[in-house]
Amino acid sequence: MSAAFSKVYVDRVLDPGYRNWKRLYLKDSLAVHRAHLVMLEERSILPPGTAAALKVAMDRLETEFTPPERIPEGNEDLYFVYEHELERLAGSEEAAWLHTARSRNDMDNTVFRLALKRELLALLRSFADCAAVFLERARKGEGELTVLFTHGQPANPSTMAHYLSAFLLEFLESAAAIGRALDSVDLCTLGACAITGTGFAIDRERTSRLLGFAAPLENSYRAISSSHWLVLPAQALALAMGDITRLAADLLHKASCEVGLVDFPDDLVQASSIMPQKRNPVVIEHLRIQANLVAGTCSSIIDLFRNVPWQDVNELADAPVSDFIAAIGDARSCIDLLSEAVAKLRSDPVRAREICLRFGVTTTELADTLVRECGIGFRAAHRACSAFARSGLDKAVLRSAYREAAGRELKLGDAEIDSALQPERFVAVRGSAGGPAPAGMVGVWAAAEAGLGALTGTIAAHEERDRSAAAELAAAWALFGSRRSR
Amino acid sequence: MSAAFSKVYVDRVLDPGYRNWKRLYLKDSLAVHRAHLVMLEERSILPPGTAAALKVAMDRLETEFTPPERIPEGNEDLYFVYEHELERLAGSEEAAWLHTARSRNDMDNTVFRLALKRELLALLRSFADCAAVFLERARKGEGELTVLFTHGQPANPSTMAHYLSAFLLEFLESAAAIGRALDSVDLCTLGACAITGTGFAIDRERTSRLLGFAAPLENSYRAISSSHWLVLPAQALALAMGDITRLAADLLHKASCEVGLVDFPDDLVQASSIMPQKRNPVVIEHLRIQANLVAGTCSSIIDLFRNVPWQDVNELADAPVSDFIAAIGDARSCIDLLSEAVAKLRSDPVRAREICLRFGVTTTELADTLVRECGIGFRAAHRACSAFARSGLDKAVLRSAYREAAGRELKLGDAEIDSALQPERFVAVRGSAGGPAPAGMVGVWAAAEAGLGALTGTIAAHEERDRSAAAELAAAWALFGSRRSR
Amino acid sequence: MSAAFSKVYVDRVLDPGYRNWKRLYLKDSLAVHRAHLVMLEERSILPPGTAAALKVAMDRLETEFTPPERIPEGNEDLYFVYEHELERLAGSEEAAWLHTARSRNDMDNTVFRLALKRELLALLRSFADCAAVFLERARKGEGELTVLFTHGQPANPSTMAHYLSAFLLEFLESAAAIGRALDSVDLCTLGACAITGTGFAIDRERTSRLLGFAAPLENSYRAISSSHWLVLPAQALALAMGDITRLAADLLHKASCEVGLVDFPDDLVQASSIMPQKRNPVVIEHLRIQANLVAGTCSSIIDLFRNVPWQDVNELADAPVSDFIAAIGDARSCIDLLSEAVAKLRSDPVRAREICLRFGVTTTELADTLVRECGIGFRAAHRACSAFARSGLDKAVLRSAYREAAGRELKLGDAEIDSALQPERFVAVRGSAGGPAPAGMVGVWAAAEAGLGALTGTIAAHEERDRSAAAELAAAWALFGSRRSR
Amino acid sequence: MSAAFSKVYVDRVLDPGYRNWKRLYLKDSLAVHRAHLVMLEERSILPPGTAAALKVAMDRLETEFTPPERIPEGNEDLYFVYEHELERLAGSEEAAWLHTARSRNDMDNTVFRLALKRELLALLRSFADCAAVFLERARKGEGELTVLFTHGQPANPSTMAHYLSAFLLEFLESAAAIGRALDSVDLCTLGACAITGTGFAIDRERTSRLLGFAAPLENSYRAISSSHWLVLPAQALALAMGDITRLAADLLHKASCEVGLVDFPDDLVQASSIMPQKRNPVVIEHLRIQANLVAGTCSSIIDLFRNVPWQDVNELADAPVSDFIAAIGDARSCIDLLSEAVAKLRSDPVRAREICLRFGVTTTELADTLVRECGIGFRAAHRACSAFARSGLDKAVLRSAYREAAGRELKLGDAEIDSALQPERFVAVRGSAGGPAPAGMVGVWAAAEAGLGALTGTIAAHEERDRSAAAELAAAWALFGSRRSR
Repeated sequence: MSAAFSKVYVDRVLDPGYRNWKRLYLKDSLAVHRAHLVMLEERSILPPGTAAALKVAMDRLETEFTPPERIPEGNEDLYFVYEHELERLAGSEEAAWLHTARSRNDMDNTVFRLALKRELLALLRSFADCAAVFLERARKGEGELTVLFTHGQPANPSTMAHYLSAFLLEFLESAAAIGRALDSVDLCTLGACAITGTGFAIDRERTSRLLGFAAPLENSYRAISSSHWLVLPAQALALAMGDITRLAADLLHKASCEVGLVDFPDDLVQASSIMPQKRNPVVIEHLRIQANLVAGTCSSIIDLFRNVPWQDVNELADAPVSDFIAAIGDARSCIDLLSEAVAKLRSDPVRAREICLRFGVTTTELADTLVRECGIGFRAAHRACSAFARSGLDKAVLRSAYREAAGRELKLGDAEIDSALQPERFVAVRGSAGGPAPAGMVGVWAAAEAGLGALTGTIAAHEERDRSAAAELAAAWALFGSRRSR
Repeated sequence: MSAAFSKVYVDRVLDPGYRNWKRLYLKDSLAVHRAHLVMLEERSILPPGTAAALKVAMDRLETEFTPPERIPEGNEDLYFVYEHELERLAGSEEAAWLHTARSRNDMDNTVFRLALKRELLALLRSFADCAAVFLERARKGEGELTVLFTHGQPANPSTMAHYLSAFLLEFLESAAAIGRALDSVDLCTLGACAITGTGFAIDRERTSRLLGFAAPLENSYRAISSSHWLVLPAQALALAMGDITRLAADLLHKASCEVGLVDFPDDLVQASSIMPQKRNPVVIEHLRIQANLVAGTCSSIIDLFRNVPWQDVNELADAPVSDFIAAIGDARSCIDLLSEAVAKLRSDPVRAREICLRFGVTTTELADTLVRECGIGFRAAHRACSAFARSGLDKAVLRSAYREAAGRELKLGDAEIDSALQPERFVAVRGSAGGPAPAGMVGVWAAAEAGLGALTGTIAAHEERDRSAAAELAAAWALFGSRRSR
Repeated sequence: MSAAFSKVYVDRVLDPGYRNWKRLYLKDSLAVHRAHLVMLEERSILPPGTAAALKVAMDRLETEFTPPERIPEGNEDLYFVYEHELERLAGSEEAAWLHTARSRNDMDNTVFRLALKRELLALLRSFADCAAVFLERARKGEGELTVLFTHGQPANPSTMAHYLSAFLLEFLESAAAIGRALDSVDLCTLGACAITGTGFAIDRERTSRLLGFAAPLENSYRAISSSHWLVLPAQALALAMGDITRLAADLLHKASCEVGLVDFPDDLVQASSIMPQKRNPVVIEHLRIQANLVAGTCSSIIDLFRNVPWQDVNELADAPVSDFIAAIGDARSCIDLLSEAVAKLRSDPVRAREICLRFGVTTTELADTLVRECGIGFRAAHRACSAFARSGLDKAVLRSAYREAAGRELKLGDAEIDSALQPERFVAVRGSAGGPAPAGMVGVWAAAEAGLGALTGTIAAHEERDRSAAAELAAAWALFGSRRSR
Repeated sequence: MSAAFSKVYVDRVLDPGYRNWKRLYLKDSLAVHRAHLVMLEERSILPPGTAAALKVAMDRLETEFTPPERIPEGNEDLYFVYEHELERLAGSEEAAWLHTARSRNDMDNTVFRLALKRELLALLRSFADCAAVFLERARKGEGELTVLFTHGQPANPSTMAHYLSAFLLEFLESAAAIGRALDSVDLCTLGACAITGTGFAIDRERTSRLLGFAAPLENSYRAISSSHWLVLPAQALALAMGDITRLAADLLHKASCEVGLVDFPDDLVQASSIMPQKRNPVVIEHLRIQANLVAGTCSSIIDLFRNVPWQDVNELADAPVSDFIAAIGDARSCIDLLSEAVAKLRSDPVRAREICLRFGVTTTELADTLVRECGIGFRAAHRACSAFARSGLDKAVLRSAYREAAGRELKLGDAEIDSALQPERFVAVRGSAGGPAPAGMVGVWAAAEAGLGALTGTIAAHEERDRSAAAELAAAWALFGSRRSR
């Protein structure tokens, strides 16, 4: 351990790792030390007096220990630096007992899982906040006419509520996937030691509970070798980010000045330094970029494990975990931007109406009306309306095309035709389940409320477990000194 | 529709799509037509007599319709070819009614989901079969000594049961992820029409049930625009494939002739055409390649949606779905290979023992023994054993190192030292939860059984739902004619 | 070799590989056999008479050998099936001499390189054809007014020539990258044997030349282990495909009915089965999908090599090579679609003019005019024009804003202002290098011509080398019999 | 410009971008300002006196301007902050002239290219340093016996020179790819303005030369829209990193204690905190991880452009460029580690010999010897040697197998057989081009020297151009004031 490492190795590997540990994992590692010592003591694995002595030293280090900026010569990692401090205070013989029945393998893995759990929980909170913004904005969008597109062309009139709630459900499904991925992180690997556990009579349930995990991970080799706790969250996050890139592409189209269906206030718009007329909704472009860069890091983490021996490997250590934690931070930035953009999203129903009439968008409903009220088949009605749309909505063309298709005169008067073409009517009749009319939206709102409720429930349950575990660990730690004196 | 398309467009887009449909989706599309017609009839949306006439024609087409090899001139897709046949039999006016209250958007999406459900269910069966093979081989591996590695170096003795059950749990977690992804496919989008549903009084619950879906998807815009039904299964499959590449890397190392811990029979081994001594366990290499190529296609499908407008787009159509279905077939090939390799995997406990003693693998346990029985701290024990390992297990070195570390003589005799170094003893004392000793494996076996049980339960539930839906559709279809005659 | 292989192994590995070989590599492998035998004979490595006997048998097999559909029992691959046929004709002792001083490693690798070279050359021809279409369409677009966008908003008037030539240069740069990647394929690995060459006095230059390669690959271990011949072409192809996805996104925006700057004839447009008004330019969507799927396969091939030992591995064999060859075919389909779309691309200068004036696109030039002719600074001019643009081009606003910014009256009259706002004038003054005015385009056309010339030159050079190598091999083979009789 | 931006937008987009600019691009942007002003002045585009006034102010700012830590309220980016400072010193009217005939589009793009050029040049230097280390270590490895593997099994004896030079050639090919990618960065886009150039009579050749670029990029729209300057370097870097992951996998196998062919000194090896016997060559694992993470970022950058409209977009701005620059830094760390590992790589010829004889590795040469000296065919010789290898090199088995295959007695004596099996002989006879014997290595060394020479030549040429451009710009800037006073 005291061997001098190659300078290149220290500069390129050990010191960067040490800095990651200081920045991201020190606090969790102290909690792991405490929980482990409590368990060792409760199971009487240490010689009498040792645990108490360690406790005193560890309590002092909790306030006194400030790791140096750069890794001290001859140390591999922050843990050894900490252990040396412990040796200084408690004596070398005593200090070493803390590492009984564990390895850096299980200790580090447990620390990474604690840190990742906290980050994923924060991410879920960002999702929940954004989902609430979406729901509120969508609710305001009931009756707010818009046009929805397929293949880049205006397809049907609908409402902003219908559109935004659709994405909200997509978003909540991604959040649920992240929640489930969190379950695979939420397993305690302490006690797996190097890979096969230990001959000491440890209690893995106890340390798991003291650290706030759902349960110990069942197989000690898998505990150290599995990548699922990184890959599953990375996949779930990539799912959410991918959807955001798609929403961004759709919003950019809707926000282009030729389409003009949606708009953002000036505080989200940038100008050009050379083109006086430009108003660039770059907030959406940045949304796209941030989402794609996060998705890229997720892919990077996932692909990292390709063909890597199914063993304990350093891919499961601080470098990738820290990159992933940074990506989660970027994802939260992206979701904050999304919340801001959605909260401030303005739509233009007048323009929506104009597009509907200009491009014959509502002729679909006219065709359906012909089917329902004139008793001709769907295809014939479609053909007549197609000619009508191509003519620029010339009713004479409609009538003659109908005559040709149906073999009889169209019985609808001009006013009835006009009424069938109203975008508002198009929306109003679409009350089938999942459609934009209020009746169609009943199940949609219920699903959105349920999804958001499940998400906030997941968050609350994790917070509660974290709180009670912290309290239990603090209590055990406090009790611990007193019992020791018996 | 009758417009002649550009020859390049037909050759490069329409005809390949048509061939995909013929090969993969025709059968499901006929089921969708039936379920849709039953529902239209039950909801009295069609004129009296129309449904009965369509039924007669559709029943004839069920046996008579053989789509031509190449897409007929002027058709966009197989659906229009089918509709033309229907027009021929039932008359153009009647035939068109079948497309009432639906669009190709929802129809196609429903067909793709049906096809994908079937493939994913077959995939889950391959997983279940392979998991059963794993479990059986792992059970045989209780007490079968092996060496497990960390960072490519021999780390701990363990058992094949411990090792294989660890991977089995990983594998079952992936299978569970595929099962959950299947839930996102298992939602019926029929009735979403283009994107906003319809003004006809359709019953989406009914068609969903007749086709064997769990439920209709709630929002009609999302039904047509979401990519989750492709992305979620692709991610889950990629997870499983990624793990297989890691297992392959580990097995290749264990199977290398210098390590020699595992071996395969001759019927899985290839020779060299130039090197007489070679016995290449290429089955594992092919496992790696097949898994990586499937993972590559999964990534391809996932990345396809980057920045694609959140609308109905052709990324959600036959080209990517067919590629994904091919990848599922390749994944099943890969899993069959894995089953074969695991079933025939032989391990060499004698070589395991040799490696343990040759490379001082069991000195970890000697260190633990010193801690437990001699009352010295973990670090001092580790230091003494480290010197012992470096010396090539020279007991004099151990004794002197112990003396230096502990300040007293080592009280263990040579026989006790030898006993502490036995690999079998190393394994036997590791009965902490998740360790290789029988006590440690109790929870592992329970978890494996539970996981396999859940997987077979998922499969059985889907099969049962598919069976009962098919029966309900057949019954409704049969009834349908008779009622119509009323 | 005669060992019976596991049925699963045959079905999942050997037979699929055998079918790949039959379909894609048989012809090239026969050429390799010929070239190798010629060289062995020229170097007097074989016993007298052996080569002549082999030649007779090989000539017979050239016409007679039809490999069975499924791999015959007990064979590993197509090569052994061929060798057995050779043994049947020439006797087992003689037949075996053909494999002197080579291994399947170098033989297969050489065959894969030959096949890949041919496919890449065909791909370059597709690029050259498409580039010629682009150039022709771009030439027609001189003076054809359009609007170009930044961040999705109309930015500057320009010409179709400027726009299409820009992409053409991008496209030619990708083609050049593919050409360079082809250089890394175009190295002969025959003679590398397993990995270290041979003790026989072979002539690697000779076989390389007879097979039409540029040169032998220098190091025999690298010859068998390198992935560059797959990864470099995959990267270059992915570059081209990525650009096409970007062009598709831009064209889809320009082709949306609200923007309406470009359009396609009916034979490239699809209708909706439910929305009578729809005209979907799905040709561009299919371009996007095909390009992305090819890019996905390229990534799959590239990622396949992650962490794969730098040795001879089966990742360098038929499964990935065949997938890549299929992707090249798909890329050619995609490029054919692109040619078709570009050849038929119509633009609408009237709509371009309308957008320019409606959205104040030309105020950039007004600002420049103020700078050039009124002597105010750029920022002040920009500010005045920005107010003018926001006002909807109200000249009173411009004058007052100018007054405020410049501290004096605007000396331009209304006609001069109007003239400065003309899109045609905007284009006409932009003659700086690379701009859309004829003077600006001089260097652009030169670069495009040069790029296309280089591409056709590369193709011609390869074709010429292939032709002369085939002739040389045929001549050597013919001569060979006669010399043998000496 | 003075509009207050949304706080979220400032925190999540503008401020992070501003910080990127301060950290990475400020210096280059000042050079761009200088070159632009020199050109404007030389072309007499500015009013008399303006340029001189700007020069004075810019000279002061060169030393005085320290941008505030956080982006000042109401600014979009660092450029506007700088311009405001310039306005403060030179007056608002004068300051604005600096932005004549340019846009942030071309200015930023030029700055990013300058920064990226510098980073790529530094990267090439790291490649050259590492290649030199490789070459030196490879030279030392002439005659240093080792074993090379195929499919994870020992295949042929060879030398460390053969092995390391093979990778060196791979590495130099990647470096050459990076060099070519640098050519696509090395094009000046200044003067492209927004996207169509300008009506001012600028001189793009001049600014290009003053900034050290090879040439101006030809088409102004492409100048702003192309992603090649990011994608091509990312692909080339990914190629190099991918190879390193493969080398790492191979070295880890060779360094495993069971194989024992290579080893690293203690200063590159880490111990276990729980397993006294462990010596983990984790330097190679970290090499693998660092290379994969860099490759992951490269993929992230490449995939970022999927389906992004082929326009000026923010994907071409500071966020991705800065990520890519960070990845280049990580790549250099990785290459430094590689240099360190290769320089200190020790191999064990004794172990190599042992493996050869233990696993019958040299029977390939015995088979060749039988072919060459006993006149039997390759296949028969191979069959006899295969039986010999399986017997554990029992000569009686060889003789009887030979007799069966050849129909006569083996004429080689035991000593001759033993000699044919010597690994040293195996290597010595392999003098065919590219083989490990000195004759085979001649072309290998020549290729390595040529590749390294080309690489150092590329670096020197860039350095020389940068130096002379800096001198030319400084001279023009100095002259500039004096001429202005005319």
